[in-house]
Amino acid sequence: MSDNQYYKHHVFFCTNHRDDGRESCGPRGAEAAQKHAKKRCKELNLNGAGKVRINSAGCLDRCEHGPVAVVYPEGTWYTYVDTADIDEIVDSHLVNGVEVERLKIKE
Amino acid sequence: MSDNQYYKHHVFFCTNHRDDGRESCGPRGAEAAQKHAKKRCKELNLNGAGKVRINSAGCLDRCEHGPVAVVYPEGTWYTYVDTADIDEIVDSHLVNGVEVERLKIKE
Repeated sequence: MSDNQYYKHHVFFCTNHRDDGRESCGPRGAEAAQKHAKKRCKELNLNGAGKVRINSAGCLDRCEHGPVAVVYPEGTWYTYVDTADIDEIVDSHLVNGVEVERLKIKE
Repeated sequence: MSDNQYYKHHVFFCTNHRDDGRESCGPRGAEAAQKHAKKRCKELNLNGAGKVRINSAGCLDRCEHGPVAVVYPEGTWYTYVDTADIDEIVDSHLVNGVEVERLKIKE
């Protein structure tokens, strides 16, 4: 399948802000995390067709694990706390293809 | 792979609006298309874990084919004109697993 994928890894950060008091990814630093990932991938020359794309997205509906991001086509779901976590996902998963087990959403 | 996917089909509509005069998906009806797809999937009881999720996303960087949407984990890229196209993608691809060849971005 991966041979036919336009992006080798397409990453979507939920950056949704709820305004009804319920928990959501946006207020947990999601936008900064997405920007950090995009910048780091650019520095590493990972961005582009056949390589990596870092996107923001609306609510991915896994709020209870938030903040969350998903990497396709693998369908690997991550949660993260800080930019060091983002760096680890970039360096391990996006550069070397090794998923970061400690940050994966298991259920 | 699909057995391990949280969503069987995860669809992202680019709803990006550029403000520099360059073409983008947003002004081409992308938000209305995303809302239409989400509503139709809800009517068909397709939304949810193990089934379908319809999201909006930032620029997917395939503006020249816009408006665009991508379905993961398949990595199928579509362009569309109207809600009839969206209905065909929902009914054929998301319900029956048959890609809509005439709407696929080929390159």
